[in-house]
Amino acid sequence: MKEKVIVAFSGGLDTSYCVKFLAKEKNLEVYSAIANTGGFSETELKEIEKNAYALGVTKHITLDVTDTYYNKCIRYMVYGNMLKNNTYPLSVSSERIFQAIAIVNYARETGAQYIAHGSTGAGNDQVRFDLTFQILAPDIKILTPIRDAVLSRETEINYLKKEGVVRDWKKMEYSINKGLWGTSIGGKETLTSNQCLPDEAYPSQPTKTGSEQLELEFKKGELAAVNGKTFTNKVDAIREIERIGEAYAIGRDTHIGDTIIGIKGRVGFEAAAPLLIIKAHHLLEKHTLTKWQMYWKEQLSNWYGMLLHEAMYLEPVMRDIEAFLENSQNNVTGKVFIKLMPFHFQMQGIESNHDLMKNDFGEYGEENKAWNGEDVKGFTTISSNYLKIFNNVNKGQLDI
Amino acid sequence: MKEKVIVAFSGGLDTSYCVKFLAKEKNLEVYSAIANTGGFSETELKEIEKNAYALGVTKHITLDVTDTYYNKCIRYMVYGNMLKNNTYPLSVSSERIFQAIAIVNYARETGAQYIAHGSTGAGNDQVRFDLTFQILAPDIKILTPIRDAVLSRETEINYLKKEGVVRDWKKMEYSINKGLWGTSIGGKETLTSNQCLPDEAYPSQPTKTGSEQLELEFKKGELAAVNGKTFTNKVDAIREIERIGEAYAIGRDTHIGDTIIGIKGRVGFEAAAPLLIIKAHHLLEKHTLTKWQMYWKEQLSNWYGMLLHEAMYLEPVMRDIEAFLENSQNNVTGKVFIKLMPFHFQMQGIESNHDLMKNDFGEYGEENKAWNGEDVKGFTTISSNYLKIFNNVNKGQLDI
Amino acid sequence: MKEKVIVAFSGGLDTSYCVKFLAKEKNLEVYSAIANTGGFSETELKEIEKNAYALGVTKHITLDVTDTYYNKCIRYMVYGNMLKNNTYPLSVSSERIFQAIAIVNYARETGAQYIAHGSTGAGNDQVRFDLTFQILAPDIKILTPIRDAVLSRETEINYLKKEGVVRDWKKMEYSINKGLWGTSIGGKETLTSNQCLPDEAYPSQPTKTGSEQLELEFKKGELAAVNGKTFTNKVDAIREIERIGEAYAIGRDTHIGDTIIGIKGRVGFEAAAPLLIIKAHHLLEKHTLTKWQMYWKEQLSNWYGMLLHEAMYLEPVMRDIEAFLENSQNNVTGKVFIKLMPFHFQMQGIESNHDLMKNDFGEYGEENKAWNGEDVKGFTTISSNYLKIFNNVNKGQLDI
Amino acid sequence: MKEKVIVAFSGGLDTSYCVKFLAKEKNLEVYSAIANTGGFSETELKEIEKNAYALGVTKHITLDVTDTYYNKCIRYMVYGNMLKNNTYPLSVSSERIFQAIAIVNYARETGAQYIAHGSTGAGNDQVRFDLTFQILAPDIKILTPIRDAVLSRETEINYLKKEGVVRDWKKMEYSINKGLWGTSIGGKETLTSNQCLPDEAYPSQPTKTGSEQLELEFKKGELAAVNGKTFTNKVDAIREIERIGEAYAIGRDTHIGDTIIGIKGRVGFEAAAPLLIIKAHHLLEKHTLTKWQMYWKEQLSNWYGMLLHEAMYLEPVMRDIEAFLENSQNNVTGKVFIKLMPFHFQMQGIESNHDLMKNDFGEYGEENKAWNGEDVKGFTTISSNYLKIFNNVNKGQLDI
Repeated sequence: MKEKVIVAFSGGLDTSYCVKFLAKEKNLEVYSAIANTGGFSETELKEIEKNAYALGVTKHITLDVTDTYYNKCIRYMVYGNMLKNNTYPLSVSSERIFQAIAIVNYARETGAQYIAHGSTGAGNDQVRFDLTFQILAPDIKILTPIRDAVLSRETEINYLKKEGVVRDWKKMEYSINKGLWGTSIGGKETLTSNQCLPDEAYPSQPTKTGSEQLELEFKKGELAAVNGKTFTNKVDAIREIERIGEAYAIGRDTHIGDTIIGIKGRVGFEAAAPLLIIKAHHLLEKHTLTKWQMYWKEQLSNWYGMLLHEAMYLEPVMRDIEAFLENSQNNVTGKVFIKLMPFHFQMQGIESNHDLMKNDFGEYGEENKAWNGEDVKGFTTISSNYLKIFNNVNKGQLDI
Repeated sequence: MKEKVIVAFSGGLDTSYCVKFLAKEKNLEVYSAIANTGGFSETELKEIEKNAYALGVTKHITLDVTDTYYNKCIRYMVYGNMLKNNTYPLSVSSERIFQAIAIVNYARETGAQYIAHGSTGAGNDQVRFDLTFQILAPDIKILTPIRDAVLSRETEINYLKKEGVVRDWKKMEYSINKGLWGTSIGGKETLTSNQCLPDEAYPSQPTKTGSEQLELEFKKGELAAVNGKTFTNKVDAIREIERIGEAYAIGRDTHIGDTIIGIKGRVGFEAAAPLLIIKAHHLLEKHTLTKWQMYWKEQLSNWYGMLLHEAMYLEPVMRDIEAFLENSQNNVTGKVFIKLMPFHFQMQGIESNHDLMKNDFGEYGEENKAWNGEDVKGFTTISSNYLKIFNNVNKGQLDI
Repeated sequence: MKEKVIVAFSGGLDTSYCVKFLAKEKNLEVYSAIANTGGFSETELKEIEKNAYALGVTKHITLDVTDTYYNKCIRYMVYGNMLKNNTYPLSVSSERIFQAIAIVNYARETGAQYIAHGSTGAGNDQVRFDLTFQILAPDIKILTPIRDAVLSRETEINYLKKEGVVRDWKKMEYSINKGLWGTSIGGKETLTSNQCLPDEAYPSQPTKTGSEQLELEFKKGELAAVNGKTFTNKVDAIREIERIGEAYAIGRDTHIGDTIIGIKGRVGFEAAAPLLIIKAHHLLEKHTLTKWQMYWKEQLSNWYGMLLHEAMYLEPVMRDIEAFLENSQNNVTGKVFIKLMPFHFQMQGIESNHDLMKNDFGEYGEENKAWNGEDVKGFTTISSNYLKIFNNVNKGQLDI
Repeated sequence: MKEKVIVAFSGGLDTSYCVKFLAKEKNLEVYSAIANTGGFSETELKEIEKNAYALGVTKHITLDVTDTYYNKCIRYMVYGNMLKNNTYPLSVSSERIFQAIAIVNYARETGAQYIAHGSTGAGNDQVRFDLTFQILAPDIKILTPIRDAVLSRETEINYLKKEGVVRDWKKMEYSINKGLWGTSIGGKETLTSNQCLPDEAYPSQPTKTGSEQLELEFKKGELAAVNGKTFTNKVDAIREIERIGEAYAIGRDTHIGDTIIGIKGRVGFEAAAPLLIIKAHHLLEKHTLTKWQMYWKEQLSNWYGMLLHEAMYLEPVMRDIEAFLENSQNNVTGKVFIKLMPFHFQMQGIESNHDLMKNDFGEYGEENKAWNGEDVKGFTTISSNYLKIFNNVNKGQLDI
């Protein structure tokens, strides 16, 4: 009986090659699986399935893990206002992990001896797949025909042609990865350091001018409503915000950062919903959390984002951080008002029952009833105490 | 012989009251001093001096500490890409400290027994003055007539009128603080949580439409040239960038954060130069620093910004952090390209001899000569080791 | 009708003075309350009650919050291996907070208008009481007769004598605070920088020589058994360990640190149980947690300890940190073996089903089956990649 | 002409095999080099040289980098009070890096095409050598015959015997690494989790009973004198302290931590000088640094220790951290008094002109002249402000 391989299948050239090559040259029974984290439409998934069977797979399956991806990851990225290097919402990085988990779980279910992925040896995704597969299923062997043989596109196309697979594999000018939490665009300008993507390189184009108000409502840190419309399914809320923001070409930028394998990588992205949601959520937190909650949330979130980016989602510390983040969202409830304009947006303000600006004691810059000038004098006397001592002991060392 | 007081004088209602009140009611010899950190023009300083003498001060002095302020503070804020709460360039917060230091040094020089400031009991600035004065001159007493008596504007005006000081003290709709590192605008909308300042509230108005290229050059982290023009005086470089950015109304936003006295404070600001310089500097760092340099710079800079904001500039740890930051700038040399548009801007790219994207070993997403797929396999095998062990020992606890 | 005051009563000179003074001079109805966090015996509490009524209080109450103190605080200090400045188990600091909370809750229950405490103006405890009282009951006024009048012991004794209260108030050579989580000893040597307490200054004296084995068992981070004997009440387990360790005079040291009011404070302490429990728990974690769990636990625990020490137990971030810490203890289950000797102890090892040293893949320094030398080569090639690039771009800058 | 290899030579079985194997089977011209970081005596180095020539090397060299190791590493480990996992002074970890650097520099000087080391595939040292060699000399190939062939001791001995090299290669019960900054002892008990090394396993044995005073003096963080005797050469000072402490068997413990390759590793060590110096230095800092200096030093030092342990000494961030640490030592000048007893020691106190306990303002627990009770009231009123507001806005959420 043949051994079984699960190919993490996207329908593109590389994974099509893998299917054919593993069946023919390695004599394996090939199952193809695509893990959808929200980036593929029904139509696209149908097309991918058709292509899989056309390549001769024994079985093709679509693993829908969109809700899992939201619940186990996006939710925490929002709680943590996570933007890698203060810019990038970890669009692709985070999706790959959940795709890898879905694939490896399917491989264990089906008793496959092998998992194959189509990564080359040059990017982050190979690490995300390898690490996740190895940790969760150390007994399943990983096959990477493209990486192993350092194949060129031409070689792959010729092999498929020889095997009777004829499709139009024309290389796109840009490599585009569309997902629920943003679209990444790589190629040409992103391979330089001094140019950024032209507007035409983005898959969507702005359709609106002028400006528009957007109102996002959060309950305990989670999106609850968009422009007054309640969403119980948060994935749908994200899609609605993306639709609205995309019309203004909001959320475009270029990310430059360190890859897992140690080189600097640069990529363009468009992520209207992530940017709008994160910035709105962050503003609401500035009104409802204490200084030290903000501080430690930022510390832990930066780290969470880094480990997530570097394929370490399964690290137990990530669960500990999630417990912290979830606990911190208790009062992050309220509405955020945003003004959308072509290519940019403005956070205008919030309304919340937990708004720490609203209290019975006194407001900034106004006289108040909770303390008086004498209290502030006492406060500054005690607060300056240790530096007075320091300067006294050290004979004026602080003088400048 | 009368005792002497130095009044930290701005020419406004509160400090005018202080001068008159301290001379008349407290029988002190009043010296007025204004510390200029770059926010006042020659004309304004002349006017302030005239007003001081009109109030009857024994002596008035302008203390110019703009260069000190740049060298001892702005420089490090740029090295650290410091934006409080990821938004606010610490415009007023940082200036006050250097004004306070200049005043207290002048008081020590002149042998004054008292320093007076015009703060009320409701804001951050009283703490900045009190703390700095107390640490550097614990023997000099601090007088705060407005805070002590919780005076209203009307009471102050009436007192001055009675003393023969008649000026048009009309209250501005907004309280505006203009400085070298940005202008803050408070009042009306900033006292709410849900509205932001209208465009008209900003003291400067956009004069250009369309777009424009801006090129900033840095040497070891410091601004060296603007649009190809070299600046040895960095203060002039900042002013040039402000001039260019202001025409596009760049760098406007609303800051909401924790005040030193524990309430949330909200303020609008406009800071074209700080935002452009910091974002450009940050981008250059992303290309030239290692991941862990970026990480620790951010940790220390956040802290530096917080202590600076909270009047703790004199803390010795600040000097230690400065040593770290300065050392980290060794390779932060190169040009940054920016596109300016009305109300927003886009970082386009950089050029640097230290750009870590340019190397002889291989670039992201491309085949390379420094490592191969086998190396990545080894890397992922070893990197996943500890989580494989964890999952093995803990019987599948990581499975999800 | 008289207004009511709750005096936080310890039976000592200062609080006895407060009772008398507030009843007589302030004409208040005085209730005395002592909050026991485990440091007082039944006999002592009886004696304190007798003294309270002898002073003429309307009502005296003992508030036992030992279990609350364990569940809401000690538990987390163990999870976090908390030793202030790497030395001091926060014995007094943490107890005071729970005493203050018990007192303020009692004051709210009884509808008192005032709370009084006997602190002077020179220590940390006044801040712990003041802060906790103010936050939880901003409407209740705080009275501090000793602090306000800067009274000497002699003045207090004379006043009490005059009022017919005659007791032997002899001043102890050392000020001793005994609690569940350790005893602090201050005075004489601790007021210098160069001497430490002589052995005789400690309230308990070693009774054993030679050595003895101690076995502590933890379940999910909490003490479960001592020398094989199971404890469901963790307070009893702590007492048992204290009894065993005290016989060897274990856990003595001198703490020097920053007080809340800005001066350095130095104090001796004896805390056999806290030291033994924390060091044992920490060792068990080194075997069962991942590197990043250890790292972040330490970060958050340091902070938790600092805020706790500085009377900020009620900060919401503390609850968020507790959520993290609790989550991190999932696998901290096992036994720890300790050798006790006079004045010191040695951690010998652990046994745990979650011990990450025990796995099916290979152990340190031994050949193994989970990876081979080629994998390590790949690992080091990829891991060194970014510094190779750095050195290449920067022309040998890393060479030393 | 033959290609040249530098063998990092220790004189042991593994590196002796490497020399013979590379000369004979690989036809390379073999140079042997030993980098002494202070762990080898003159006699040992002579013996190693003799053995090298006996094996037939073309040239043998001793590279003395003891002073470099002190200046570029130990110094900073003292500034940072570095104890890995709060226990281990990074004895071997740090030495290996400087040995590797010395070897690779020698290889570049001599124009060698290869460097060989005798590591197996199971430990940390292989990574330390590989990483350092690759970063500093990416063009030089690394040879690891033992790791590549997974050789047993027996195989190596037989090969050497066959080649006429007959020595007594008897395996020691424990693997011992003696260095300037401590001795590590591995084997038997350290391979378990529940036993620690018996006293006899340590290479040195205690020779004194009773107790003894030790006085260490520091100038700006560096050791200056031992028991009143000044040392300009700090390496000699370390040796003197080691000699004194070793007589009491001080500084023994077991370290358990994460290895670079992901498994937990456990090792015994003896390090009298490092422990005494670090604990003394730390105590002096507690008296002379501010709270935030202590805090950030600890953050950065933990990280420095971790990167150093994991072979990342060359990371540029390490130089930035060193700049911070050096700057922080400005006031760390004074004497520390220690009591030595068999197997343990007690820090007794310090004397320093920078001691922050000594000041003209007031001391802990004593009445003072720098502030009064009213100031503390003001301080606590303002400090509690934000939590009062929080509790007010959130309707008693903080109540417990």
